[in-house]
Amino acid sequence: MAPHPGVRRGMGDDCAVIRLPRGHEALVTTDFSLEGVHFRREWHSPDSVGHRCLARGLSDIAAMGGQPIAVFLSLATPRDLPQAWIDHFFDGFLRLAKKFRVTLAGGDIAESASGILVDISALGSVPRGKAILRSSARPGDGIYVTGELGGSSATVEKMLSGQKIILKPADYPRHFYPIPRIAIARRLRERKLASAMIDISDGLSTDLGHICEESHVGANIEALAIPLAHLRGRSGAVDLGFALHGGEDYELLFTVRPGRRVPVRIAGVRIYRVGEIVRGRGMKLKPPDGPPQPLLPRGWQHFIG
Amino acid sequence: MAPHPGVRRGMGDDCAVIRLPRGHEALVTTDFSLEGVHFRREWHSPDSVGHRCLARGLSDIAAMGGQPIAVFLSLATPRDLPQAWIDHFFDGFLRLAKKFRVTLAGGDIAESASGILVDISALGSVPRGKAILRSSARPGDGIYVTGELGGSSATVEKMLSGQKIILKPADYPRHFYPIPRIAIARRLRERKLASAMIDISDGLSTDLGHICEESHVGANIEALAIPLAHLRGRSGAVDLGFALHGGEDYELLFTVRPGRRVPVRIAGVRIYRVGEIVRGRGMKLKPPDGPPQPLLPRGWQHFIG
Repeated sequence: MAPHPGVRRGMGDDCAVIRLPRGHEALVTTDFSLEGVHFRREWHSPDSVGHRCLARGLSDIAAMGGQPIAVFLSLATPRDLPQAWIDHFFDGFLRLAKKFRVTLAGGDIAESASGILVDISALGSVPRGKAILRSSARPGDGIYVTGELGGSSATVEKMLSGQKIILKPADYPRHFYPIPRIAIARRLRERKLASAMIDISDGLSTDLGHICEESHVGANIEALAIPLAHLRGRSGAVDLGFALHGGEDYELLFTVRPGRRVPVRIAGVRIYRVGEIVRGRGMKLKPPDGPPQPLLPRGWQHFIG
Repeated sequence: MAPHPGVRRGMGDDCAVIRLPRGHEALVTTDFSLEGVHFRREWHSPDSVGHRCLARGLSDIAAMGGQPIAVFLSLATPRDLPQAWIDHFFDGFLRLAKKFRVTLAGGDIAESASGILVDISALGSVPRGKAILRSSARPGDGIYVTGELGGSSATVEKMLSGQKIILKPADYPRHFYPIPRIAIARRLRERKLASAMIDISDGLSTDLGHICEESHVGANIEALAIPLAHLRGRSGAVDLGFALHGGEDYELLFTVRPGRRVPVRIAGVRIYRVGEIVRGRGMKLKPPDGPPQPLLPRGWQHFIG
């Protein structure tokens, strides 16, 4: 694949040299993906691991309304890891990179004493001053999410349940091959629809908590409005707890000023209004019956410990 | 410390937002620093480890003639690591960051199954099209190095010698607290003196080999011209082998077009002419007596295995 035109110099020098589009700022994010914390070799195929570690970074770029340009991969592997694992890891990584025209422009390789460790840095760009921050939500803004929530953590929970169940990508593709919401986020930025935004990587309650904290506001959420994911072959939707607190959905959570019309779908993905930003601090959840209750950030802490 | 003015948004959002100086390009480099590979807890104090892992990245920015802006730190630590170790690691890291006005603008923290793992990404800038690459050396160019070589690897060798010798920073400060050659590199760029450049992180023979390979040229080196480091209290200079193949000196290796005058010192550091770029491929070393011999890249592979 031809490199991204912004990459003037990729691998093969002390640094990559990257030219941003005129009038743009740089976006940078880094994300660990550690064996036993973010993935397990018996659950995740190597190309799923490669895909997921890149998707984490691209989802952060999306959450700012940005466009990715280049990615840097640091990979430490145990000495006894088969070369085929590494080859398939790169297959998954580079397939997703190609899909979003992101150039692998550098990185580092090392031996690890135990387990596979991946750290990626992604570089993107956004027009000057137009990055969509967490800190700009205001009371009265509507709260919206893309897609459906809880499917990724429900998949992990099922595999963790001790019944030696290994789910296949077809059971819930977005767990194994999440697609970052780059196009949706760009439209939200171009139409000036999102006042604040974050990606749901740690769980709705934790990530909404970040918006509330950075914006110095509170939030009311309607339990019935939260879109629940469906796993293949399961009877019905995932439990609300997964959608509230489950991680790694890589959907977008954003706020919109009152009075602005939000499309039902953007780039083919459903958009749901789930609540409203309010004055003060703290989040509340309105259950189907009964009064609102405090909603605490109890986002998924991955599956370690 | 006030953040670098280019850092519009540091930690606390999905990405850092960084504005480059007008007319500049971004430089990005990533570097692992792994316990047992790049450092040992019994040899290196935590603040030396923090300093060194940042210096690695800043030295790569220097090697392009760039100016650092921001750094991103991914740190995985074993559960039983004392908090004091982490605190002192940050002391060393942030002291060097402050010295070069680099802002810690993001990163990730995780638990590691075994050993301390650090991965840093550094972002810098250079005027458009002015990055000093490895690929632009030409036959007839003089070959120059800054400072003295071999001291860092001689320090490691002494500690590896099995005599339970732990050297102190005062024995060879540049091993424990290397200062990246940012100012020298900037002057070389501004005066258009360096035609190609790399930092000596893997050893002169390996790093000169990179310039030769990327520039499709060969090189002749004079053994007597190579500046040898001195360790405190040692009788005389380090052996030539350390200066030729030893790593982690973080000096600059650069080429200069014939006829250009190179100062004896830049920013207080001695500059030495060590050889010349020639047509063809391959490197040769001219010993004090006898004919030139082939010089193979035998750079230091760190102290693992």
